[in-house]
Amino acid sequence: MSIKISQNFDAGAIEVLSTADVGNIQLNLRSDSNAEFSQWFYFRLQGARDQDATIHIMNAGQATYPDGWVNYRAVASYDRENWFRVETEFDGKVMSIKHTPDTDSVYYAYFEPYSWERHLALLGSVEQSDQVRVEDLGSTVDGRDLNLVVVGNPSAKKKVWIIARQHPGETMAEWLVEGTLNALLDPSNPIARAILDQAVLYVVPNMNPDGSVRGNLRTNAAGANLNREWMTPSLETSPEVYHVKKKIEEVGCDLFLDIHGDEGLPYVFVAGSEMLEGFTEKQMQEQTAFVNSFCAASPDFQTKFGYEASKYNEDLLKLASKYIGHTYKCVSLTLELPFKDNANMPDLEVGWDGSRSMKLGEAMLQPILTTVRNIVKN
Amino acid sequence: MSIKISQNFDAGAIEVLSTADVGNIQLNLRSDSNAEFSQWFYFRLQGARDQDATIHIMNAGQATYPDGWVNYRAVASYDRENWFRVETEFDGKVMSIKHTPDTDSVYYAYFEPYSWERHLALLGSVEQSDQVRVEDLGSTVDGRDLNLVVVGNPSAKKKVWIIARQHPGETMAEWLVEGTLNALLDPSNPIARAILDQAVLYVVPNMNPDGSVRGNLRTNAAGANLNREWMTPSLETSPEVYHVKKKIEEVGCDLFLDIHGDEGLPYVFVAGSEMLEGFTEKQMQEQTAFVNSFCAASPDFQTKFGYEASKYNEDLLKLASKYIGHTYKCVSLTLELPFKDNANMPDLEVGWDGSRSMKLGEAMLQPILTTVRNIVKN
Amino acid sequence: MSIKISQNFDAGAIEVLSTADVGNIQLNLRSDSNAEFSQWFYFRLQGARDQDATIHIMNAGQATYPDGWVNYRAVASYDRENWFRVETEFDGKVMSIKHTPDTDSVYYAYFEPYSWERHLALLGSVEQSDQVRVEDLGSTVDGRDLNLVVVGNPSAKKKVWIIARQHPGETMAEWLVEGTLNALLDPSNPIARAILDQAVLYVVPNMNPDGSVRGNLRTNAAGANLNREWMTPSLETSPEVYHVKKKIEEVGCDLFLDIHGDEGLPYVFVAGSEMLEGFTEKQMQEQTAFVNSFCAASPDFQTKFGYEASKYNEDLLKLASKYIGHTYKCVSLTLELPFKDNANMPDLEVGWDGSRSMKLGEAMLQPILTTVRNIVKN
Amino acid sequence: MSIKISQNFDAGAIEVLSTADVGNIQLNLRSDSNAEFSQWFYFRLQGARDQDATIHIMNAGQATYPDGWVNYRAVASYDRENWFRVETEFDGKVMSIKHTPDTDSVYYAYFEPYSWERHLALLGSVEQSDQVRVEDLGSTVDGRDLNLVVVGNPSAKKKVWIIARQHPGETMAEWLVEGTLNALLDPSNPIARAILDQAVLYVVPNMNPDGSVRGNLRTNAAGANLNREWMTPSLETSPEVYHVKKKIEEVGCDLFLDIHGDEGLPYVFVAGSEMLEGFTEKQMQEQTAFVNSFCAASPDFQTKFGYEASKYNEDLLKLASKYIGHTYKCVSLTLELPFKDNANMPDLEVGWDGSRSMKLGEAMLQPILTTVRNIVKN
Ligand SMILES: [Ca+2]
Ligand SMILES: [Ca+2]
Ligand SMILES: [Ca+2]
Ligand SMILES: [Ca+2]
Repeated sequence: MSIKISQNFDAGAIEVLSTADVGNIQLNLRSDSNAEFSQWFYFRLQGARDQDATIHIMNAGQATYPDGWVNYRAVASYDRENWFRVETEFDGKVMSIKHTPDTDSVYYAYFEPYSWERHLALLGSVEQSDQVRVEDLGSTVDGRDLNLVVVGNPSAKKKVWIIARQHPGETMAEWLVEGTLNALLDPSNPIARAILDQAVLYVVPNMNPDGSVRGNLRTNAAGANLNREWMTPSLETSPEVYHVKKKIEEVGCDLFLDIHGDEGLPYVFVAGSEMLEGFTEKQMQEQTAFVNSFCAASPDFQTKFGYEASKYNEDLLKLASKYIGHTYKCVSLTLELPFKDNANMPDLEVGWDGSRSMKLGEAMLQPILTTVRNIVKN
Repeated sequence: MSIKISQNFDAGAIEVLSTADVGNIQLNLRSDSNAEFSQWFYFRLQGARDQDATIHIMNAGQATYPDGWVNYRAVASYDRENWFRVETEFDGKVMSIKHTPDTDSVYYAYFEPYSWERHLALLGSVEQSDQVRVEDLGSTVDGRDLNLVVVGNPSAKKKVWIIARQHPGETMAEWLVEGTLNALLDPSNPIARAILDQAVLYVVPNMNPDGSVRGNLRTNAAGANLNREWMTPSLETSPEVYHVKKKIEEVGCDLFLDIHGDEGLPYVFVAGSEMLEGFTEKQMQEQTAFVNSFCAASPDFQTKFGYEASKYNEDLLKLASKYIGHTYKCVSLTLELPFKDNANMPDLEVGWDGSRSMKLGEAMLQPILTTVRNIVKN
Repeated sequence: MSIKISQNFDAGAIEVLSTADVGNIQLNLRSDSNAEFSQWFYFRLQGARDQDATIHIMNAGQATYPDGWVNYRAVASYDRENWFRVETEFDGKVMSIKHTPDTDSVYYAYFEPYSWERHLALLGSVEQSDQVRVEDLGSTVDGRDLNLVVVGNPSAKKKVWIIARQHPGETMAEWLVEGTLNALLDPSNPIARAILDQAVLYVVPNMNPDGSVRGNLRTNAAGANLNREWMTPSLETSPEVYHVKKKIEEVGCDLFLDIHGDEGLPYVFVAGSEMLEGFTEKQMQEQTAFVNSFCAASPDFQTKFGYEASKYNEDLLKLASKYIGHTYKCVSLTLELPFKDNANMPDLEVGWDGSRSMKLGEAMLQPILTTVRNIVKN
Repeated sequence: MSIKISQNFDAGAIEVLSTADVGNIQLNLRSDSNAEFSQWFYFRLQGARDQDATIHIMNAGQATYPDGWVNYRAVASYDRENWFRVETEFDGKVMSIKHTPDTDSVYYAYFEPYSWERHLALLGSVEQSDQVRVEDLGSTVDGRDLNLVVVGNPSAKKKVWIIARQHPGETMAEWLVEGTLNALLDPSNPIARAILDQAVLYVVPNMNPDGSVRGNLRTNAAGANLNREWMTPSLETSPEVYHVKKKIEEVGCDLFLDIHGDEGLPYVFVAGSEMLEGFTEKQMQEQTAFVNSFCAASPDFQTKFGYEASKYNEDLLKLASKYIGHTYKCVSLTLELPFKDNANMPDLEVGWDGSRSMKLGEAMLQPILTTVRNIVKN
């Protein structure tokens, strides 16, 4: 069997330059649909069983986040269920994966994928619960369904919104949401019970279905970076934001969490809304309480490393969490998970992965409960 | 929530005419890619929870096999894991599905789907066995991988070929193959051990990847009906047959099984090669022994109902099992599974389904062993 | 941690002579309750992690079936779920197990155990099916429940009886029954459907609960060998046979299968009733058809090796299958499974085990169907 | 089938007075071995399918904790896997269970049982982890193994002890420990990682094996209440405490948690050591920090309801947590789980159960981490 690289499957993304030599396979990252971004990759290698394969990503240095390759290790899987990290180098220009696969077929990706089939299975699974309604919010540019999972009683006092994967290549965001939903629906989980006594959760597990299936890092099918569309979303090029924003206007929002992945920083952290004009003392207290509660709930969460405080400018409101925090005067956070690992608790075998993201999604119920109790009281 | 019909997912296929009235939803079957065939459908209905939905397939009477709708009941699922039959009528022109869904989201299909993700997961799973190699045979028209699963030792005396899903809408064929592969790799299964003592199996779980993902009934991406391409397959329009035929030429063939679904007949049956010129007495005896052994192994298999014996003409060799039987002078059969049910053992809840197909695929090891033993002896 | 041997758990059985030296642990087999038999052993070894342990069973040569130790390998497990074979020698007097355990705690047994907890879980599980009733037949000597599983409609034309584990140390018999029951209740199994169309099955998964929990090889709590009690069972010393015999008298019997394990022969085989006075031609034909069908259904079943045909004498009717064959003029068989392995298809890792027994129990549905069809026709 | 009550299985306990009338079944609680205590019951009812059964526990008013029957509902199960609550009344003298079983066989118990087989399976399962050693501490009065699970590196700075089920009928204690162990060994759990960075855990999942199998509420086989034996345990009548106490002396203790169930109070709470002579300020701060952290980690935990502060007297040191707190000057707590329910978050279907206990055992890692960090710092 000769060497073959393929990518025609859900989220598959790569360009093949040369496969003649298993020790010098040359590939290129592919750009997002109608956009300049490039970083996500996902491909299958066949024919290299028991051979020392070296896969060079020739244009890695021109990726959107070249820092993403520093201290980065690619993920690999034989069965697309169990993913592990493999030796990876970056010389500033080329990223090289070195691996001796055990079988004829092996997959490599930027991060553990979360397929559209799994997304639909997740919706189908949670909808079996009496506490859940799955709503259609509208259609994406490519005509996929944009679904909302409503957990709890819509007439509950407080409305908690969680949206994930505006940037479709940040699959850890949907893994986190799966963990959150599972925990919410676990009848033995007392935090879930306590939250649902006072709040209803509106969860969008995947804000960017088209980009997810297409294998984009940051954009939807029209090339829009959804997290820059919250001021003036359009039905034509950013219907995903348009529909969610409209639904928020309809039901309100008391706590907003937008889940992302960060290509560079090997930590879990949040970016808050404290730079916004009109940010209130009450918002500040509640935001701090959320953060402290999250620290207690999960040692994977931390506050030392993160984004430098951004200064206010009007463009900030193009971002989901800033727009919502500004508009609804509520705690509104962007939660960032690493692509690489949590450097405070590195896992040599799997790095940061879907499973740890799910566990974080479960732990996140604790700060949510803290916040719900605070805002009910206030 | 208003009524919505969508189909942008793996194997999704339908055209929407009207969704204004939940009691009179009007849809059309869609044609296969670049071809006239139409029969397969798979779509999602949202917004009809607890409402009496009636879904009319307006052009059902013009489908490729209108008889397929007689005594037919569509399959439905809330979670895409558990599929059940729903009330369905056909007046000769319009097929009507009547159902009151329990949840906001429900899927309807012609038959229990088998997704490309599941296909890739199957390959990944079986490749973990020491007895399995997964080989790439080439690429499809759309650039998907055409994979071969080799079970056992390639130097074994006898070569058994099983191919499935030349017609991509006949998903029961791949369900059957999954059952066969699971049984073959079950270390407690003595029939599997006995087969693998003397034979190697070459299994193509999905002959038509593109048609499967596109939601076609019978053709590949180029519009070719693969089971009419075995005389002169081309790399351009029927590479799937081209590659498999070439591999058979390379390794040989002592028993050939081509797995299909039949739209009309509610029975499991085989079509043999007895009408071929030069069909030998030995072939006849072995074919009969296979059939008798299958009857003993599974009451779902029967010989009373089936296709009328076709007369020989040269076009017959365009079909896989005829071509192989003629060329290799071996037992070569087309196995047909029902879309509807086994009328001898009807199941009101699920009809014929993926699970029964898998069980049949497991039972099929018995006639395979019978045949392997016969041909080793002869 | 010093070396410790313990046995106070379900079916635990051993006597400790010396544990001072891990390379020379000396143990004795323990006798059955109130009886001379000895063969079964089941104990836990602690403290030998990563050490070369040698365990001598000093009185193995005086066991009931010393031939049982020839070419025998003991089974071991770390988690009591996964059992594997370990190196074992027998010099005619002492049997020696040599093993270097991976963990501090490891179990050794004569054969993969089947606990009373698992028995009760099996009853609870099958009773969830609409097709099953679990009946109490009476109490054992120690006051345990003797349960009957009735599968199918009691008014069905034909009555099939399967009893297992009259000899409690023959745990493979109950593993087989678990396989049979699972297959019977699998809605996708067409053989099960076909059987239940015409027959009801009366299954006693464990004829000897007390002996099972006590860790006996052959007797109940009163020291009775139940398979010698069928002529004149007593409520005092063999209530297990008394109650089952009475129920058979009440409902009748058209096919009787008594499941056993054989200590010596490394094969699966049956002993029939052909030596009985008044054994009819019809019984012979049906018995032969059963055997032939079983051969087709499972290569683990064979007819070459087995017991020599016993001559008739009145004591024969003390045995279950002879008594029932004689009384009900039906096919009545003792099915023997090996303790060691199937020498025709040896498995170096696990030998014959629970899983292969279950698979055989599933395959046994095929000769049962053959027989049911024959006797319905006749 | 007539009505039958039986109890000869692991932890089975009841005495039968009358089963003549399904509407008036009369039973008595049985005393613990060699002791006056009585409260635990566990029995099987057969023959009452679809009948309105009323089961009177005639001597319930003379149980050790008659308050335990106030607002109490018995648990029932068909398959011994899924347990649910059934209607139960108490008039001060007689407790009456009213239930119409769906099947012929149903089990009733004081609380969801945790069998000895499950205990051994738990040991076998956790021992598969590289982080775990399972040690033998000695033997019980009946000759069962008393095992210790060591999680993490014994040379770690801090030693955390968790013991459960000194009172064998308090099965929720072992359910909790199973939850704790699962969470500790979950590679995705960051709290577990953080704890194991600095501490080793010594866990005794079942302090009272004999009482557990015998179906006792409070005593071991010799009739000893183990939680009154910590001053002067004896090898003859309380070897379980003797061996554990000795091991604690050997390795030390920095945090001690003794898990119990409370028959009367429908809440989760702890009893601390603040009444002890020489209780230090540091102990008080750390105890308070543990309690506060537990409150944050689980809304099932609370501090409003609990035992009144006991005054100090020398007999107090007979209790495990007081003895250890006094001797090792560490945080030492008795954690009490309800038999009934958590009245703050009642679950009508299952009440308090094994699953909620496991979840609490997982949440308990958070206060353990808090305490480990505090004592490492101090
Ligand atoms: Ca992002
Ligand atoms: Ca076909
Ligand atoms: Ca026997
Ligand atoms: Ca207690």
